[in-house]
Amino acid sequence: MTVEQRLSELKISLPPAPKAGGIYQSVLIRENFAYVSGHGPMRDDYSYITGKVGVDLNTDEAKFAARQTGLAILASLRAKFGNLNNIQCLVKSFGMVNATPDFSEHPLVINGYSELMMEVFGEDNGIGARSAVGMGSLPGNMAVEIEAIFEVKSGDHV
Amino acid sequence: MTVEQRLSELKISLPPAPKAGGIYQSVLIRENFAYVSGHGPMRDDYSYITGKVGVDLNTDEAKFAARQTGLAILASLRAKFGNLNNIQCLVKSFGMVNATPDFSEHPLVINGYSELMMEVFGEDNGIGARSAVGMGSLPGNMAVEIEAIFEVKSGDHV
Amino acid sequence: MTVEQRLSELKISLPPAPKAGGIYQSVLIRENFAYVSGHGPMRDDYSYITGKVGVDLNTDEAKFAARQTGLAILASLRAKFGNLNNIQCLVKSFGMVNATPDFSEHPLVINGYSELMMEVFGEDNGIGARSAVGMGSLPGNMAVEIEAIFEVKSGDHV
Repeated sequence: MTVEQRLSELKISLPPAPKAGGIYQSVLIRENFAYVSGHGPMRDDYSYITGKVGVDLNTDEAKFAARQTGLAILASLRAKFGNLNNIQCLVKSFGMVNATPDFSEHPLVINGYSELMMEVFGEDNGIGARSAVGMGSLPGNMAVEIEAIFEVKSGDHV
Repeated sequence: MTVEQRLSELKISLPPAPKAGGIYQSVLIRENFAYVSGHGPMRDDYSYITGKVGVDLNTDEAKFAARQTGLAILASLRAKFGNLNNIQCLVKSFGMVNATPDFSEHPLVINGYSELMMEVFGEDNGIGARSAVGMGSLPGNMAVEIEAIFEVKSGDHV
Repeated sequence: MTVEQRLSELKISLPPAPKAGGIYQSVLIRENFAYVSGHGPMRDDYSYITGKVGVDLNTDEAKFAARQTGLAILASLRAKFGNLNNIQCLVKSFGMVNATPDFSEHPLVINGYSELMMEVFGEDNGIGARSAVGMGSLPGNMAVEIEAIFEVKSGDHV
């Protein structure tokens, strides 16, 4: 089953690919790796889930924001490649939570993203290396920001 | 002298490899590189050194936590490869200190990790690129978290 | 036109290469990639632009600090390679702003660095993947810290 077929089966629909909010490329490909810029929890109308986790959002709400961030990343990858079938695997992710200084459940928050990647790419290819950490602040007060590296199937990259 | 022989000579014993605290792999290998997930300052009994650096821990205590984090990373690498002899070199490290907003001695803290890597892999292979920075918060209020990339000897990776 | 010729044409002069402030290499090369350690906004006299962005510095002042950080990175790359002509392209950057918890304009700040890279390496090679985020604290209270990965022209690396 291809990744796109799995997305259909899971009834996961992706938001529009976010526009870069600065001088950078959302996805850059070098050799067999796709470097994905920091993405945020974008809704379908391009607005973002904002607020400090630990006071404005609880862990479950922030976990949902992390999943939404994952959908935005998938949308950017699809926009870059045309479809998601030539993603070989998730390599590493850096999951950042816009949290209060005493927040401690970052791994549970970022699991919202990691569960999505595992569903979409499978256990063999969708579980990468990861850090889940707390930032002092994030652009536009986004609740979550995640950057990642994916491996691209050999010969399929531009 | 192999890395394992050097560890013996230095009388460095590693803690048990930490269990992943979320949906990720502690170490993922792609091509010749080992991507190491964020690790914390784990003690031998699996508990972590916690607290804000600058108020709960001073710089020396946090430096010790950074060394302990390095030991946990070495434990994960050994668990992945069976031993540490097929690590070629340290490539890069991202050293994160759970610090108060006015803390400024992050490099001295992360040196606790970097000194360990230099001892274990030698000056030629144990000094990589590095950033040492202050986070707003970390999982479980850990004092330090470090992620890293190591190069694996060609042909030895899975 | 080579990168060094473009620097001359743009009348951009680089500061001295910063000395590593800990146990790390400012630039480490593996295969075709140059891993650049976290750099700060160094002035020509080796002093750093310090302060919390959002209170001690406004967005424009912090954007200038990000450009200065880019100049320090270029200085380290030139010191490593002798000149900048064998840099193929900017791959990814992690732009960190030492900001107050309610600061939200991180992308505008890090654009100061990204505009420099685009000027120096051109639109084709100077726009990479990027994250722009807010840290709780930075070494020596630096206003900005940036780490990056560049691709080196094949055959030119050490």
